[in-house]
Amino acid sequence: MEMNHYMRAAYELAKAVNPVDVRPNPVVGAIVVCENGKIIGKGAHLRYGQEHAEVHAINDALKSKPDLSGCCIYVTLEPCSHYGKTPPCTELIIQHNIKKVVIGSRDPNPKVSGVSVLQRAGIEVVIDEDSSIIELNKVFFINQNFQRPFVLIKMAMTIDGKIADRNGTSKWISGEASRAYVHRILRSETDAILSTAHTIIKDNPFFNLRYSKDEIFEKNLIVLDRNHQLIKNKFSDLNIFKYRSYSRIDIYGDSDQKATVANNVCIHSTHFDQNGNLVLDKFFTSLYERGYNHILVEAGSKLAGTLMKNNFFDELCIFIAPMVMADENAVPIFHSDHIGLLEEAKRLQMVSISQLDHDCMLRYRRY
Amino acid sequence: MEMNHYMRAAYELAKAVNPVDVRPNPVVGAIVVCENGKIIGKGAHLRYGQEHAEVHAINDALKSKPDLSGCCIYVTLEPCSHYGKTPPCTELIIQHNIKKVVIGSRDPNPKVSGVSVLQRAGIEVVIDEDSSIIELNKVFFINQNFQRPFVLIKMAMTIDGKIADRNGTSKWISGEASRAYVHRILRSETDAILSTAHTIIKDNPFFNLRYSKDEIFEKNLIVLDRNHQLIKNKFSDLNIFKYRSYSRIDIYGDSDQKATVANNVCIHSTHFDQNGNLVLDKFFTSLYERGYNHILVEAGSKLAGTLMKNNFFDELCIFIAPMVMADENAVPIFHSDHIGLLEEAKRLQMVSISQLDHDCMLRYRRY
Repeated sequence: MEMNHYMRAAYELAKAVNPVDVRPNPVVGAIVVCENGKIIGKGAHLRYGQEHAEVHAINDALKSKPDLSGCCIYVTLEPCSHYGKTPPCTELIIQHNIKKVVIGSRDPNPKVSGVSVLQRAGIEVVIDEDSSIIELNKVFFINQNFQRPFVLIKMAMTIDGKIADRNGTSKWISGEASRAYVHRILRSETDAILSTAHTIIKDNPFFNLRYSKDEIFEKNLIVLDRNHQLIKNKFSDLNIFKYRSYSRIDIYGDSDQKATVANNVCIHSTHFDQNGNLVLDKFFTSLYERGYNHILVEAGSKLAGTLMKNNFFDELCIFIAPMVMADENAVPIFHSDHIGLLEEAKRLQMVSISQLDHDCMLRYRRY
Repeated sequence: MEMNHYMRAAYELAKAVNPVDVRPNPVVGAIVVCENGKIIGKGAHLRYGQEHAEVHAINDALKSKPDLSGCCIYVTLEPCSHYGKTPPCTELIIQHNIKKVVIGSRDPNPKVSGVSVLQRAGIEVVIDEDSSIIELNKVFFINQNFQRPFVLIKMAMTIDGKIADRNGTSKWISGEASRAYVHRILRSETDAILSTAHTIIKDNPFFNLRYSKDEIFEKNLIVLDRNHQLIKNKFSDLNIFKYRSYSRIDIYGDSDQKATVANNVCIHSTHFDQNGNLVLDKFFTSLYERGYNHILVEAGSKLAGTLMKNNFFDELCIFIAPMVMADENAVPIFHSDHIGLLEEAKRLQMVSISQLDHDCMLRYRRY
């Protein structure tokens, strides 16, 4: 279904906001429309802690029209009804006697309940949810609904599903355009990279944002390192420890360790079950509590397989390089001790397919 | 580089021809242009055994201009210079004193040599090869250069490169839109399907063209059946033997067998080496000699792996279904006894990526 014209305008305002600027808040756009159908107010939530979209739109409308009692407001997300960093938007809407509120997506936070507050004040509320609008805040919704980070798994593989040869060599399967996409888009839009000590010791990556030879930025890094290998002296020269001033590294092992590797490196303990497998929910809750809302997994087939099997992921981004390994002992994209029949195969939802130079990029979402 | 305007017109004429109508000939288009730059003749080779494109274009031009001595002819393929089903086109061009011939692709057949014949007659020849024009006759060029059929391998797999679960179940990995594409495009544009007795006994396919419930057409079938299993009585009810009136089945085993399964089933012998592996060049030469110019391989990972490893394929068409098997004992897309490092991985050339409902279709070409 076509999006309503006014909602489309509010959506465009929300879409222009960089999610990173407002995180952990959602991106929101709002439009005030007067009796004759003219748009008289526009607003977006621009930065965490500052005014919400509704406030900007109403203030904008008031410049040309002091009485908004015949107006409608279109807002991409249900208005808040609680005191947070700012007063509730429902209060402002009620105060200006706005006639009707059209909402593009519900807020999963039970504290919000803007719809019922507005309805109790006698305001007409129309809920017209749209998948593109929900998509804008996919990270926010996962955060709110599950109290854990949005998890994006990135893998680069050959046509026959191998991420490394039998010796573990994986440099480089994907091409330059794909690697640039990882730096400029995937790493850039997430709060941190999640990897494992195994991958880091094997590949010695920098895990930074490299936009060009001269434009290199830091990125937070989370490492699963059950046996605390990385804090051993022989690994202190690893690239991940270099060139870090404002970013941090959170290393998770199976016990508290009082080692000091560098100022920006923190060692934490997390739970592993008796078979040595990471207890996923506790780990991800801990990351969420540390302020990680959106995580990019760049690790091997073991972690990817565990996350896949246990449904602890939201999106999967695969780069397929135009090559065939044809070696059954090469490393498969997902390691699993699972015995699966076709009817039990995990089904994903396709989001997009695109070509990056000679590679194909497929994006899938968990159902 | 942009294609010349006149060559583009000749290309469009060639492109409008169905390759199946002219096979084993190539598709060709020709345009006659007079002194003032006006197109006065158009022609295409429309059906095997009938006039070539140049003949149609020149006859078309003669209707409005009896003297073609100042004209140029643009032809997508080097004109023939030998007597085949029709007299040589070079003779006709020379006879009409055509000033200049522009050629969009060379003919690999050494008997053709139209360029040198024309040059010896004092005609200016410009060779302006274009990849789109060469693409039109990709099958013809492989046939001519290697004296074997053009081999297109089709596979349907999960995201993690599995074509069946550990029990061999593969129905259905790809979705309806992909299967419709196989029937309407891949099977339709090829001369025959090549499969194996193993696949046929396991899946019991019809191997026909099913456009709809009421539009079902036959397709020639070639089967590798080393031990002549298919001619045993217990397999006489297989679907491949049903509903065949005008199509044929060629079964290749390791020895001559005098069994009569049905009128349209022929049993042949072909070479297998001492390890039981098919000797590919002899087999494909035999298919080519039987008139198979374009073959679609629909088999399992063993045949696909053998063809891939030995470079006996021209294109690979993969349908990726949005599911993950995550079972290391599921059937991989390519079976191989190969031990391969990343640097030795076989590199393919990407042709296209497209979305078919929830599946992704990737087409690659051998370098």
